[in-house]
This record gives sequence, structure tokens and C-alpha cells, in this order.
Amino acid sequence: MKIAYLGPEGTFTEQATKYFLKSMKPQEFSLSPLASIEDVFDAVETGAVAYGVVPIENSIEGGVNATLDTLIFDSDLFISKQLTLPIVQTLMVSEGNAGQKITKIISHPQALAQCRKFINKNYLNAKIETSTSTSEAARIAANAAEIGEVVAAIGPMNSADIYGLKVIHESIQENQNNTTQFVLLTKTDTSAPKEGCSTSVVFATKDEPGELYRILGIFAIWDLNMTRILSRPTKNRHSEYVFFIEIAGYRDPTDVSDALTMIKRKTVFFKNLGSYHIVDI
Amino acid sequence: MKIAYLGPEGTFTEQATKYFLKSMKPQEFSLSPLASIEDVFDAVETGAVAYGVVPIENSIEGGVNATLDTLIFDSDLFISKQLTLPIVQTLMVSEGNAGQKITKIISHPQALAQCRKFINKNYLNAKIETSTSTSEAARIAANAAEIGEVVAAIGPMNSADIYGLKVIHESIQENQNNTTQFVLLTKTDTSAPKEGCSTSVVFATKDEPGELYRILGIFAIWDLNMTRILSRPTKNRHSEYVFFIEIAGYRDPTDVSDALTMIKRKTVFFKNLGSYHIVDI
Repeated sequence: MKIAYLGPEGTFTEQATKYFLKSMKPQEFSLSPLASIEDVFDAVETGAVAYGVVPIENSIEGGVNATLDTLIFDSDLFISKQLTLPIVQTLMVSEGNAGQKITKIISHPQALAQCRKFINKNYLNAKIETSTSTSEAARIAANAAEIGEVVAAIGPMNSADIYGLKVIHESIQENQNNTTQFVLLTKTDTSAPKEGCSTSVVFATKDEPGELYRILGIFAIWDLNMTRILSRPTKNRHSEYVFFIEIAGYRDPTDVSDALTMIKRKTVFFKNLGSYHIVDI
Repeated sequence: MKIAYLGPEGTFTEQATKYFLKSMKPQEFSLSPLASIEDVFDAVETGAVAYGVVPIENSIEGGVNATLDTLIFDSDLFISKQLTLPIVQTLMVSEGNAGQKITKIISHPQALAQCRKFINKNYLNAKIETSTSTSEAARIAANAAEIGEVVAAIGPMNSADIYGLKVIHESIQENQNNTTQFVLLTKTDTSAPKEGCSTSVVFATKDEPGELYRILGIFAIWDLNMTRILSRPTKNRHSEYVFFIEIAGYRDPTDVSDALTMIKRKTVFFKNLGSYHIVDI
């Protein structure tokens, strides 16, 4: 069986995919890195792969819009597992360049931004360059010795194995609370709320003042705790939103079913994205 | 006096800036395009400029995180005006290239995505290239004839004037509801709610189930209509959010003041970002 993920190899999404597989039967799966979040959704929808892994929310940057919008508007997939991965950035050089003065540091703009203070403190004179992904940065660093440069890449530690790099600094990101949540997508309907699971739903309210308040009242009546609340534009006009809500820690799945039945009746758009276990890493 | 905006010249933010100026005294202002949203905030905070203009929300893409997070966490500026600009994309070539077969189309990835259907229908064989901004694309198209290429740029129509291009197709974006809201930032305290104005506030609730419901109840009691509701991570940990809310169309500013006083008392973080007119364009 195949499991697709947002590639290339050596990214945080690949790390997340490997953690998901630990809780399944890893020997039965082959990994398939794809170029975009939409490609991962497509591969699961067409049946080309059994599962797909994409990021859904980062603790600093917020929701991943491509994932949220595809789940809301364009796909019929369900979330079947979720996990939270700490984003730990590493500084790496090629083995041939180890011990030499670093003249250039390269990474994805987001990774560079996360390590700004470390760079300014330790490598103030290094030239900074951007790449399309942290994997691309690792590939460039690996080939740098050949062109007579000493280039360090910033990215996840598993890039070091893949591209044969040497780690020279670990955990160089500023914010130690930087984590990303990833979801495992599947075609199987997992939408019936189950004990010990979290549940995600999306809905749009009637265009009347106080409607969101009324709908949140349904969650409150059934004592359901929201662990995610994100709004996305309906794309029709300003001030119209679809709400993406996750509820967790409920004791009685029947409460959730009853609440969601009522929310479905009282909203103009509703979709249950599934009930799923949170995987510990 | 100076007014800073997210540059470079020829962008939609420059268009918005010119519309804001129409409602002021345009002859008294000189325009200062800056490289980033953070630079615009800084220029206003330090007093280098009197006003700053940045995008805050797009009807398709959603909130502009850099603007929201700086308003919430890093600045003491107020919103003093707001307007909504239709995002109309145009296909342009250099005068020297007019009438020739287009071999390459260049623009910012977001603009290219907005015009995908038009490109596939009319220029299926053209090479597609990305640029860092629609202005950069216009500059490249303007210089293309010199290097023997026929390059078309996609971007706002005012790029054509600035870079001496000829418009060959207007309004080529797919979604005709694509609009962006821009805000005019100032150091002056505009936070007291005023008649005929909209008001924006941000708050974080106590970490208890049902707290958001209770706070939205305050808006509901005073019959206040929310025209924007966006959540941003507090950056401490998952499931903790700051809510960015705009209320509009209220008849009695005293109601708003009373409601906001109560919300401030009942939340762990609160900031009034100002009361401001919506500028018609």
C-alpha cells in the first residue's frame, strides 16, 4: 500500500508520516512524496494511494490554508489520525566542509525567519540565501564543496541522513513552542464520534447577526471543548466565513452526535471531517 | 507629509493608497513604497511617516497574517480608515512587443493562480514563470523586447503606466468576487467608537470551555454585528487563540463602548484597534 505526503524527502511532513506509520504496519507501506498539498488530496481521492499526510496548523503561523480550504470546499476525505510535531531546526554542512568557516547559509524563508537570532549571533557575516524548501537547501549544501563554497543548510535533522550532511548546531529556532499539527487523510468515513477521539467539523452560519453565537451555544450546552477554531472566507464576499472547529476530550460520543445533528440543522453549510485518534510521538 | 505603503510601485496597495489620499489632501502627501508590512508599521511608529497602508484581508485567501499579528502583538497603531479594492488582473506586454505571439507569461504565483483558466484557454503553449511581485513581472516584461523575447506580465492596470506597457486583456481573473481590504494606519488614538464608523478589537479569552461563547454573548446582547472574525495563534501553544473582530453598522456608539468595556473586563488580553470610516472607491 502507498502513503502520499507533501514532499520532498527530508521535510517535517516526512517525519510526521513516519510517526503515523509507527502506529500502523510500517512494513506494508511505501512512501510517495508529492509536490503539493492538492496533489496529496488527489492521490487519496483517486485511490492511487491509501493515505495522505499534510500539515494543518502551525502554532506560530496558524492554519495551513491549502489544507483547510481543500478539506472544506474541494474534497470528500476524512481525517483518520492527527499528531503534533515539534519544529526543531538544525544547522548542517557537507562532510567535506565540516570545520571550515561558513560563508553562506541557505534555507526556506520561514526556517530562516525562525532562526534569525541564532544567525545574527553566530554567523553575522554569512551570506543568507533562500530556497524553495529545507530539502532543497540541504541538497545545495551537500553539493557546495564541489564548487568551492562552504554553505550551511537549515532544516530538520533527518535531512542530514538523506543528503549526507553533518549536524553542527541543534535546536537553533527561537521559539521553543513551535509545533505543527499534521493529519492523516483517508477516503473511509470516520465521521461517527468515538470515545477517546477528537472530531473536526466545518460549518457556515446563516447571514444574520448573532448566528455564530447561537451555534457556539450548542457546543456550550453539550459541554464540548473546542481545541481548534479557525475561520476561512467563503470566497463569495467579505464578512462571510466557514468555521473549522475541532472538539476534544469529550466523555460521551452520543453528546457529540446529538450536538452535531443540531448544528447541521441550524447552519447553511455543514461537513463532518471525521473522528480520529491523536497519535503520541 | 509622508504616507508609506507596502511597495513596490504599481501594486494593488499603491492603488489603495491613492484612494485613501483622495479622501484626504493629496497635494500635501508624498508616497513612500517600503519593502515589507513590518517596515510600514515601523515607519509610522517612529514618526518617519504620518500614515501607513497595508492589506488586511483578501476575500479568497483570508487574513493577511503579517498585518494581523503586528497589529495584535507588536504595534500600538490604530486603524484610521479602511477600504475594499476589487482585485482586477490585466495582461500586459511592452509596446515593442505588441501584436507578437506571447512566448512567456510572468507574474506573482498568487496572480498566476487567479488567472489559470484564462491562461490555459488562450496561452496554453506559453512558458509560465514566477516573480516576487506583480511589479517585478511588469519590469521584466518591459525589458523583454531587448533580449528578443515576447513576455507578458499579469498584474494591476496601473503597472502599465509605470512600466510603459500596453494592456492586451483586462479582468482576466477567474473569481469576480476577489477583493482585498486595506487599512490606513496611524499613531493617533481613534479607539473611541464613533457614529458611522466600524470598530476593530482583539481579545484572548480565559482558557476555559465555553469562554468564547460567553464573550460573543456580549456582542449579541448589545446587538453588535461582526463583519470580521479571524483567529490567530497566541504563539504559546496549540488551541490558544487571539480573536480579531470587526463590528459595523451600529447606531449608538455608547452601546459599543459599554460592550467593549465589559469584554475588556472578561478577557485576559484586550486591545481596541480603533474606530474608523470605510472609504468608498
